[in-house]
Amino acid sequence: MTSTTSTPAASAGPAAPTPGTTPLRPLAPGAARITGGWWADRQRANRENAIPTGRERLESAGNLTNLRIAAGTAPEGATVTGPIFMDSDVYKWLEAAAWEFGREPSEQLRGWIRELTAEVAAAQAEDGYLDSVVQEQDGSLGRPGRYSDLPWSHEMYCAGHLFQAAVAVSRATGEKGLLDVAVRLADHLDTTFGDGDGQRRDVDGHPVVEMGLVELFRETGERRYLELASWMVEARGTGIIEGHGKEPTYFSDRVRVREATTVEGHAVRAVYLTAGAADVATETGDTELLAALGRQFDHMLATKTYVTGGLGSRWDMEAFGDPYELPSDRAYAETCAAIGGIQWAWRMLLATGEAKYADVAERMLHNGFPAGVSLSGDEYFYVNPLQFRDGSHANENRSPAHGRRGWFDCACCPPNIMRTWSSLDGYLATSGSLDGADGVQLHLYAPSTVSAEVGGARVRLEVETDYPREGSVRVRVAEVEGEVGEWTLSLRVPGWARGASLTVAGDRHEVPAGAYASATRTWAAGDAVELDLPMEVRLSRADRRVDDARGSVALERGPLVYALEQVDQPAGVVVDDVVVDTAAPVTEERTDALGGVVLLHLRGRSGGHEAGSATWLPADGARPGAGQDVELTAVPYAVWANRGVGPMRVWLPTS
Amino acid sequence: MTSTTSTPAASAGPAAPTPGTTPLRPLAPGAARITGGWWADRQRANRENAIPTGRERLESAGNLTNLRIAAGTAPEGATVTGPIFMDSDVYKWLEAAAWEFGREPSEQLRGWIRELTAEVAAAQAEDGYLDSVVQEQDGSLGRPGRYSDLPWSHEMYCAGHLFQAAVAVSRATGEKGLLDVAVRLADHLDTTFGDGDGQRRDVDGHPVVEMGLVELFRETGERRYLELASWMVEARGTGIIEGHGKEPTYFSDRVRVREATTVEGHAVRAVYLTAGAADVATETGDTELLAALGRQFDHMLATKTYVTGGLGSRWDMEAFGDPYELPSDRAYAETCAAIGGIQWAWRMLLATGEAKYADVAERMLHNGFPAGVSLSGDEYFYVNPLQFRDGSHANENRSPAHGRRGWFDCACCPPNIMRTWSSLDGYLATSGSLDGADGVQLHLYAPSTVSAEVGGARVRLEVETDYPREGSVRVRVAEVEGEVGEWTLSLRVPGWARGASLTVAGDRHEVPAGAYASATRTWAAGDAVELDLPMEVRLSRADRRVDDARGSVALERGPLVYALEQVDQPAGVVVDDVVVDTAAPVTEERTDALGGVVLLHLRGRSGGHEAGSATWLPADGARPGAGQDVELTAVPYAVWANRGVGPMRVWLPTS
Repeated sequence: MTSTTSTPAASAGPAAPTPGTTPLRPLAPGAARITGGWWADRQRANRENAIPTGRERLESAGNLTNLRIAAGTAPEGATVTGPIFMDSDVYKWLEAAAWEFGREPSEQLRGWIRELTAEVAAAQAEDGYLDSVVQEQDGSLGRPGRYSDLPWSHEMYCAGHLFQAAVAVSRATGEKGLLDVAVRLADHLDTTFGDGDGQRRDVDGHPVVEMGLVELFRETGERRYLELASWMVEARGTGIIEGHGKEPTYFSDRVRVREATTVEGHAVRAVYLTAGAADVATETGDTELLAALGRQFDHMLATKTYVTGGLGSRWDMEAFGDPYELPSDRAYAETCAAIGGIQWAWRMLLATGEAKYADVAERMLHNGFPAGVSLSGDEYFYVNPLQFRDGSHANENRSPAHGRRGWFDCACCPPNIMRTWSSLDGYLATSGSLDGADGVQLHLYAPSTVSAEVGGARVRLEVETDYPREGSVRVRVAEVEGEVGEWTLSLRVPGWARGASLTVAGDRHEVPAGAYASATRTWAAGDAVELDLPMEVRLSRADRRVDDARGSVALERGPLVYALEQVDQPAGVVVDDVVVDTAAPVTEERTDALGGVVLLHLRGRSGGHEAGSATWLPADGARPGAGQDVELTAVPYAVWANRGVGPMRVWLPTS
Repeated sequence: MTSTTSTPAASAGPAAPTPGTTPLRPLAPGAARITGGWWADRQRANRENAIPTGRERLESAGNLTNLRIAAGTAPEGATVTGPIFMDSDVYKWLEAAAWEFGREPSEQLRGWIRELTAEVAAAQAEDGYLDSVVQEQDGSLGRPGRYSDLPWSHEMYCAGHLFQAAVAVSRATGEKGLLDVAVRLADHLDTTFGDGDGQRRDVDGHPVVEMGLVELFRETGERRYLELASWMVEARGTGIIEGHGKEPTYFSDRVRVREATTVEGHAVRAVYLTAGAADVATETGDTELLAALGRQFDHMLATKTYVTGGLGSRWDMEAFGDPYELPSDRAYAETCAAIGGIQWAWRMLLATGEAKYADVAERMLHNGFPAGVSLSGDEYFYVNPLQFRDGSHANENRSPAHGRRGWFDCACCPPNIMRTWSSLDGYLATSGSLDGADGVQLHLYAPSTVSAEVGGARVRLEVETDYPREGSVRVRVAEVEGEVGEWTLSLRVPGWARGASLTVAGDRHEVPAGAYASATRTWAAGDAVELDLPMEVRLSRADRRVDDARGSVALERGPLVYALEQVDQPAGVVVDDVVVDTAAPVTEERTDALGGVVLLHLRGRSGGHEAGSATWLPADGARPGAGQDVELTAVPYAVWANRGVGPMRVWLPTS
């Protein structure tokens, strides 16, 4: 592939499409800032607890030792520790530290980033190759060497995370050391793989390098990286990956991305691939590919997404299930899959301006994603079920029955969570053109400030809200710097927000749900708009093909999905066997507990079932007794298992 | 352990408790014989197709090559093939061939048994050790040797299957060659493991050796084997097994067998262990252990058994789920687990005379077990879900989405099915004492003859029935040889058979379901009784804690559970989205298709759901339309997927 260099991206966040390729543009790092509220508390825990603890874990779990062995600086007798993708934890942590530095510089973060950059650089081979686990195996132990087991080696997966980390460090700190390492490795990949003479026609079993390469292109302007990513997206789906007794489905290798109609197989692989394909489609202007991704996203949402936003229902193969196969108790819903889902949704939003993508991202960011981490920020779930049964014994080391854990043998989730909190500000808002109107778009709501360029001027907005606890969002134009005429301020009205209203200059009007509410004016400092989102408790049911949730409702309030936890129920209530009374009123109670949430109280019944001798019984036999009338208390699903792990459920039977 | 020798068992079938240790005694091999009907057809397919094909598979899959490598007779360059428990397939096949020879001798079967016995004997090491895969690894490749990886090596698992096969060959053919091999290996195990000086305190990760050792004791009279089995049962549950990153739960090693209150972990391991423990409890007169097993069986039935009798709901770890965790679509319900369930139930029945155990065994034998094999006898399912969804793509190589298969890389199920069909006659009846009355007990119904000893006399019964297609079972006393006074003929009335009647000497009276109906007389040749079981279609519902089946019914008729298969439905019906009308009559249609079954026709509706954009929607939103009124057709679950694999479901939503 020939090398051409184009201008680096002007805007830069967790994904920074080349200007002109997407209608919506991310803001520059630091241009949007969460200043308080629920998410700010989570970000503080991430900065103060998770990132420092993570730095220690990389040492104690052996990730850094691996790099030192590759660098030849490890103590005599040190041995390489697995799993094979250990390097990726270092890169994800570096990415988290970089974005966190961008949010608020600190000498400690800078020092850590420099230290780890030096460790990574020292481990890199002369020719640019880098994967500390494979390097140690290379030849010396008679084990497979470089690129000899691509279905499982995760070498390009690690590379992809390195690229993302290097771009983050470059954007957030301006330092280029890690970017140099990334470029050398990317060049090595580009030389090795492709359709050219002497090149290998192979792709990695675990996507993410596609996203990483496109970002590296955006940061360096080196078009070969985009072309390699594009080639990888196109090569996949042709049964190119063989090995480990796994079906092509597992690797998202059964159908080409541009022909696929759904997501399938290993969920994290699937959504990392589609997110990378969205990056490729964006940069290459490939509307056919983008449309195919849109269809897959729609099918995922309509048939394979939990009400919590969780993705991937199967423990086995960590995979998407068949359509409507969404068990609550055995929901896998890996935390990393929610993160991949957010990344995909964000890229689709930038490319299309369609509110549904932000809706899904918000659902994940307030439910399925934060459930994966404790309020303290440093204890994690790998797996996020929607029901936890009484009498559950851990049969797997990732089981929530073990409680939240400080790290995992396979530690993909913790640093992935860290980098998501650290880059969350970047998802708040965009500038650019929505439905033909230039301006600023607000996608997620939190107390925040947003600076953006509009028509050559710089505007600064201040957002005041107690969302998601309350539904009022006030946006004030704090500053307009430079000359600009009319422009459009757009606020997303979530799909659930039927009856929302927007007040502009004292004029209140209803705005439709699932779309952007816009006001076009020549804005001046001091102008304000107010969005009012209805926060009445909502009852949702599942599509009737979701067998597990038949005859049940989920409680939602604002963007939050609720759950019953055993610990909140009066004595005698068995969460496994409650029935809720949907006709009775649900009352709200604000509490400072659990990070400050709104509790919901509802009426129901518990118990009264006969003790059956089998799990089936005659349909015309005695019905269960009425049970005991009880008041039940529900908490946001996001905060479950912060008081130990006990019976919990999201879907509540109604009869 | 000291060695004592007691008298070999007088009666001998698939499990042959020492006389006097159980109230019910199995009949001698050949004493009960299925002579026609549904099961006879299955046995014929097993004899004519499965066993000969299985003989070829052992060659082509490499099992016999492994043995020849251990024997030093393999061709130059031959290599050992995995998985590690390959030998057990040979043993299970030998057991099947032996019981089949017992049913009807044939020179071909005798020749095969002798050939394979010679192969096994040649592979055995000088000191009695035998495991061809481990023997090849032993030292030469620097891989772990004997007993070095007991959590995973399956060495004693293979030994257990060898013991069962050797006992079967001895009982059914009278030849002792395989028994000699078994005894040498059992002695090697007995020397190596235990609490004695220089012995290892370790057990195998996969039970079955317990059953095998007790049977070997019963066949040889060598009490050390019983003592070793007892020691293994007692040692388990103390966290004795460590390795492979698996929880103790997986290995049934979290709680001691006599303290456990449920079954958990890998389902086949769990029920093989409890079946072996039942053998130990029986032989040692350990009523406390037997009571503990009874409690575990009850809990399994009440919370962890599918309506099909399927056991082990989880794909992940092939494990029992939590109580009431019984998904239909992702039911694992391994065929081997149903077989283990039958073995356990049979041992509990012998030990207690309680009808519920025979009820469960019958449910498995007519539903969950036969679903694992095609009508042709030689194509198999490893996994037996209760629902197969439209749009399902295989994500695992054991997925039913691949269709039935002639063999598996992990081929535990096919020869396990073969030995079960070949030994099925042994489960029909017992002699002995039921509720204090001596006589003959009929547990399973098929056209058959049953010979038994009662009070020193020999009686022969002939059973005429078209069960399970029809509910009339006529039992005629064909012959009484010798002097005997009054004795009791007992017929099991299944738990579902409310309104059953027994006619004795023209006198018809209702008999309670879930118990044995008995008649005590001085029976003479020509006497007959007739049991009438009500064959009206029954609707069952699930315990309301089984979320997956909420608001649904299962159709049952006699011992058969029914399923809707897509192929039988009129155009436009979507099995994934049907609703059945439980008020409308269900009609029956007898057909010669599918081996000769009764089809059920019922009314329902299909379709009419809105195409949702997500899997959840407002509970107060538009309800699905009524859909299209349709006639649905159900077939016995046992015969599903004999016309390709398509959408199928057992639990049918009612609204």
